[in-house]
Amino acid sequence: MTLLSSLGRASRSAPLASKLLLLGTLSGGSLVAYSDSNAEVNKEQKKKKKVVVLGTGWAGISFLKDLDITSYDVQVVSPQNYFAFTPLLPSVTCGTVEARSIVESVRNITKKKNGEIELWEADCVNIDPANRKVRCLPVFKDDPEANKEFSLEYDYLIIAVGAQVNTFGTPGVLENCHFLKEVEDAQRIRRGVIDCFEKAVLPGLTEEQRRTKLHFVIVGGGPTGVEFAAELHDFIQEDITKIYPSVKQLVKITLIQSGDHILNSFDERISSFAEEKFLRDGIDVQMGMRVMSVSDKDISVKIKSSGKVLSVPHGLVLWSTGVGTRPVISDLMEQVGQGGRRALATNEWLQVKGCENVYAVGDCASIAQRKIMEDIANIFKAADVDNSGTLTVEELQDVVDDILVRYPQVELYLKSKHMRNIKDLLADSEGNAKKEVNIEEFKLALAGVDSQMKSLPATAQVAAQQGTYLAKCFNRMEQCKDHPEGPKRFRSGGHHQFRPFQYKHFGQFAPLGGDQAAAELPGDWVSVGRSSQWLWYSVYASKQVSWRTRALVVSDWTRRYIFGRDSSRI
Amino acid sequence: MTLLSSLGRASRSAPLASKLLLLGTLSGGSLVAYSDSNAEVNKEQKKKKKVVVLGTGWAGISFLKDLDITSYDVQVVSPQNYFAFTPLLPSVTCGTVEARSIVESVRNITKKKNGEIELWEADCVNIDPANRKVRCLPVFKDDPEANKEFSLEYDYLIIAVGAQVNTFGTPGVLENCHFLKEVEDAQRIRRGVIDCFEKAVLPGLTEEQRRTKLHFVIVGGGPTGVEFAAELHDFIQEDITKIYPSVKQLVKITLIQSGDHILNSFDERISSFAEEKFLRDGIDVQMGMRVMSVSDKDISVKIKSSGKVLSVPHGLVLWSTGVGTRPVISDLMEQVGQGGRRALATNEWLQVKGCENVYAVGDCASIAQRKIMEDIANIFKAADVDNSGTLTVEELQDVVDDILVRYPQVELYLKSKHMRNIKDLLADSEGNAKKEVNIEEFKLALAGVDSQMKSLPATAQVAAQQGTYLAKCFNRMEQCKDHPEGPKRFRSGGHHQFRPFQYKHFGQFAPLGGDQAAAELPGDWVSVGRSSQWLWYSVYASKQVSWRTRALVVSDWTRRYIFGRDSSRI
Repeated sequence: MTLLSSLGRASRSAPLASKLLLLGTLSGGSLVAYSDSNAEVNKEQKKKKKVVVLGTGWAGISFLKDLDITSYDVQVVSPQNYFAFTPLLPSVTCGTVEARSIVESVRNITKKKNGEIELWEADCVNIDPANRKVRCLPVFKDDPEANKEFSLEYDYLIIAVGAQVNTFGTPGVLENCHFLKEVEDAQRIRRGVIDCFEKAVLPGLTEEQRRTKLHFVIVGGGPTGVEFAAELHDFIQEDITKIYPSVKQLVKITLIQSGDHILNSFDERISSFAEEKFLRDGIDVQMGMRVMSVSDKDISVKIKSSGKVLSVPHGLVLWSTGVGTRPVISDLMEQVGQGGRRALATNEWLQVKGCENVYAVGDCASIAQRKIMEDIANIFKAADVDNSGTLTVEELQDVVDDILVRYPQVELYLKSKHMRNIKDLLADSEGNAKKEVNIEEFKLALAGVDSQMKSLPATAQVAAQQGTYLAKCFNRMEQCKDHPEGPKRFRSGGHHQFRPFQYKHFGQFAPLGGDQAAAELPGDWVSVGRSSQWLWYSVYASKQVSWRTRALVVSDWTRRYIFGRDSSRI
Repeated sequence: MTLLSSLGRASRSAPLASKLLLLGTLSGGSLVAYSDSNAEVNKEQKKKKKVVVLGTGWAGISFLKDLDITSYDVQVVSPQNYFAFTPLLPSVTCGTVEARSIVESVRNITKKKNGEIELWEADCVNIDPANRKVRCLPVFKDDPEANKEFSLEYDYLIIAVGAQVNTFGTPGVLENCHFLKEVEDAQRIRRGVIDCFEKAVLPGLTEEQRRTKLHFVIVGGGPTGVEFAAELHDFIQEDITKIYPSVKQLVKITLIQSGDHILNSFDERISSFAEEKFLRDGIDVQMGMRVMSVSDKDISVKIKSSGKVLSVPHGLVLWSTGVGTRPVISDLMEQVGQGGRRALATNEWLQVKGCENVYAVGDCASIAQRKIMEDIANIFKAADVDNSGTLTVEELQDVVDDILVRYPQVELYLKSKHMRNIKDLLADSEGNAKKEVNIEEFKLALAGVDSQMKSLPATAQVAAQQGTYLAKCFNRMEQCKDHPEGPKRFRSGGHHQFRPFQYKHFGQFAPLGGDQAAAELPGDWVSVGRSSQWLWYSVYASKQVSWRTRALVVSDWTRRYIFGRDSSRI
């Protein structure tokens, strides 16, 4: 390579800085200096640690967006070359929003970064933490040349493959139900709904058969199921019945929920509001029912209270009842002694327990939080600096911040007891603060704290925050090795490298159709009605991953208001 | 049914007129009069003739849009419940325009009409003109209840099923090529193109394999093939290479044409412009080649001049080489003695030859124009009103309009000979007008006329004009029975009920990429370059079937300018 061509190449790859440098070196004549700095850069690139990211969902993309890739060599393996804004999937099922409006090409997201990320459209089929390798299979099943397994070595592995549908072993579900996890699912449902109407107007069917074709059943009363029911109801009322007038009386939507209320992860004011709204809309909500099996014609349900089994004919079934484990994750869990769990257990720093340098984020992982009672003796020992066998309020004060960061359940416990300070825990039964406590009294004071531990829900919000958190840790990996910023290590001494991950709940929405939504906002604030729907619009528009999707989603909403939803079967 | 409920129903079904009538009758107290008129309406409805329309493409939809359905009982059978603006299909293959932006629900189109049209999503599998019946099979193959054949009786049948792909019997084409006739085809191609790039960047492929994956071959140099090549080139240059930088040097587009020029249905200035543009763009145009067979890896082509056979490895092949006959049409042609033809022969009134009350429009039909020499003796006899055995200029003048309408080739012939009037035909070799001609001289004068007969191309423009023409005939069916408006019947006397169909060519476009288009406009006007592209934008926007699709297509174009095309594989 001649010097000139290397200069040319450098000026293309590193835009401004190198062009200025080039200008400086050429004008000053110090070409050798430039050439040296170039060699140094090459050496540095060789030292870069290899990061392999599995998955490009919420967790994976948040990680990639925030990672400083100049310090890492990043490889991404995902069966999809796009990121989908999954909270809008129910809107895609009925054409309120177009599928393409909620997806953004991963390569488009990563190309904006200052460096190169390699992306391969493949499934990870095996994780081998002992040899720091993953095996991947490209998704092109019909092309033998492009369907060869390949291996990737990693220094750090980020598992963000998400979860899969959970059928709870119910027979016939996989074959006869629709799901709503991927963009393709939503597109299939959209075609499926239109097909039901086209079938129902065909000549030669009995009214009973037409009724069956137009019976839409939703299993699962969580946010996805409820939102789909609401979207479907709106779609049918606002658009479909106008063009299929002959069968509009025969349509029925049924929502089957095994629990006693729909939206039971929400505040109960929201549950009731949703149930009343659905009652007014004529959506049949059946609570306390368990699905036994699903065939192409019927769905068999058991009424929990009476044990009676009913057979309900259906035209289309959506199954949305929580998440299950992907096989590659189950396999890894077996390898690292976590067999039988639903998700990979990580510590509070999102590191998978039992393997080094492997992190898991999003729906495929769950944080196994440390109980304070496991460490109580060490905490006491670390705090009791004068080794007196008792802890004074002053001694406790010195470690209080570390305790609050390391064991977030303490803060939740204080809140639940309406206490303002950890010192209040040490008060006696009359409320008088004690000056000193011994180990037994200390244990007693903190005995109830661990009951406040909660596992995080499998939501986009959690996954996105985990991805961002992890990227920030990676960006300060070197820096924090020498200057750890985490809390005190009560067991082994010293400090943790990073603060543990802490989830901030910004609230959740449940759009209920007819421009009504329910919102649960921070500070126990509940809002229902039209204003919540507008809040929903603005939050969802602002959370879009790119300006393109933001513009498209907003224009889709506008289009729906003007022209209604399209009912072509494409 | 009580009288009041019947009044209520009437007022809902026939909006304004019946409400006024209702008001008049109620206030005047003459309820009996209204009830009578209602009964009369019912009787009239029973008399309505049944029109069955097969297909909802350009011809079918144009017919439905213009038909006055208050006088007919209309049933539509189509495998798709939407109409697609097919000239924009090449734009859909690369995401310049979204699939949904070019489709409109047929039910949405027909619901705006003052009455009800029945539409069934089914394929017509058999036409039985002897018994005036068609047999139809719904498209829902996986649902036995909704997949039962049904029969429809008709008084008038409109066949507008279009054509299918023509493989010319080339082995492997159906299995290994993409086509571009339906919206789904365009969506498949879009995913196919992205897949080629995703495969090409996978680890473990040789450079040769990567080159093969990125070799896009187009068979057929007609407008569809050329436009796809141009779109693909733009997509790759403007969007794809930015996100797959490592393989951008390996991409190749080849266009294989059996003739000596691409776009050979256009003016040759346009052909040359297109060939030069493609040469500059690096699109490899191979002329004088015939495809022998296609496998999943290679395409085998024969160089016509040398007879040499080459094997060309490919990543994706688009086959766009003219149209073939659908089985249901071949079967009908056998029944009515038209076996072996490519398309249903109709007369100039679009009636299928050999069956009564059956019309065929669009790509599935072709007009078998009457030769003037077949009727020459009858014309002479009809014109020679004084039975003198000779035709005077005055006698000819009386039938000239009828001749021009009935035999449109006469006008084309006059134009080609630079004559202004049919009388000029009777001039002798020195150009002196004759006063009288006998039958032999008359025959001689018109001998060359029939050479000007041309069959119409299989384009959207022809199909749309035929549909509209036929609807207008149907709307005046009764009126023209008594007062025929067509030309004189030279054979049997009297007049034809309608004027024959006459095609008006408004020009054609060939978008060539890079915001360059070629346009062939009426009056031998040829325009190439950026201005033609803008003309193309405005014509295509104005020709959209609804305001919704118009708004969406224009917003898609805008979006492409701002954000580029999306490369997510959905």
